[in-house]
Amino acid sequence: MSKNVTGPEIERLIQLLARLPGLGPRSARRAALHLIKKKDQLLIPLAAAAAEASDKVGICSVCGNADTVDPCTVCSDARRDHSTIVVVEDIADLWALERAGVLRASYHVLGGTLSPLDGIGPEELNISSLVNRVRAPENPVSEIIIAVNATVEGQTTAHYIADQLEGSGVKISRLAHGVPVGGELDYLDEGTLSAAMRSRGSF
Amino acid sequence: MSKNVTGPEIERLIQLLARLPGLGPRSARRAALHLIKKKDQLLIPLAAAAAEASDKVGICSVCGNADTVDPCTVCSDARRDHSTIVVVEDIADLWALERAGVLRASYHVLGGTLSPLDGIGPEELNISSLVNRVRAPENPVSEIIIAVNATVEGQTTAHYIADQLEGSGVKISRLAHGVPVGGELDYLDEGTLSAAMRSRGSF
Repeated sequence: MSKNVTGPEIERLIQLLARLPGLGPRSARRAALHLIKKKDQLLIPLAAAAAEASDKVGICSVCGNADTVDPCTVCSDARRDHSTIVVVEDIADLWALERAGVLRASYHVLGGTLSPLDGIGPEELNISSLVNRVRAPENPVSEIIIAVNATVEGQTTAHYIADQLEGSGVKISRLAHGVPVGGELDYLDEGTLSAAMRSRGSF
Repeated sequence: MSKNVTGPEIERLIQLLARLPGLGPRSARRAALHLIKKKDQLLIPLAAAAAEASDKVGICSVCGNADTVDPCTVCSDARRDHSTIVVVEDIADLWALERAGVLRASYHVLGGTLSPLDGIGPEELNISSLVNRVRAPENPVSEIIIAVNATVEGQTTAHYIADQLEGSGVKISRLAHGVPVGGELDYLDEGTLSAAMRSRGSF
């Protein structure tokens, strides 16, 4: 690439940046150059921030969130309703729901969805730990909200989890399907439209 | 953002990543999560690579390239033709020309283009150092290839540099305009087409 033009340190930085989602080889090169040009404002702080994060950040042993404390900030927040557990696929989904700020509940991160073709079975996901949380007598759970993606894999996983929790006496719910806020009907697929129609409410 | 969900270390990492070109706030969050999840393979190596680059990388005092040695690998490469200087706007352009591998010459990075509206005059660019390089008796220069972008600002800068070098006895050339290799005429602008027509060569 630019082997004869710069030192191996820059090459290494480019290669690592290229492995970030959203950056390809070309934009990684641009990002590395930007970092080098803004050494004091950006490269040095980034090196420090990355080192500090790698030092301190871990995965919460209760819910699977990424945080610097274990149990994480969410799990140890006394003002939350810990009798409700929102089950999500990924930490990013947990963060997205928190940004929306609709519910002050606790979470459980599955770490993916069932995908037999990719060799991802129930053992690869944090499903048994969810079942254990629900069955643990010291923290009574009243509702499980399955907030997985509205994809085939997500829905399959949701059904599997609902099966596993059958007989636990816990209410199991899932996110509503419908027209996204701001969405235009003309651009929506038939599945979404018919779901929105079926679940219509009074005006 | 995700203030109540994760520690400040992750927030800081997200904020710094969001300042990279090509990453917005949303993709920076995704990138940070990816880094955290791949701590050993990605986050720790990135922290080390960024620290090493910030330690070692500097700007070449001769040509303005970024490298770990000064003069840079290009300037100190004895197999290159140092009587030809390719003038580019940015380090990224130097790297792009080197990837193309058309010419084993030396370079001069301007650090931008003349842009009076943004307050960028000749003093903000590495133009006087180029003139000094051309005038220095110890390293006779025979040709200056002005390889700036084919934008209005680039061409204005090219003309200014050509003016500054007038009377130095050095040949001044610039990149050809024409149809990009693989380009379709239907998608090209009139300026490119007429330039390609004017500069047509025999078959």
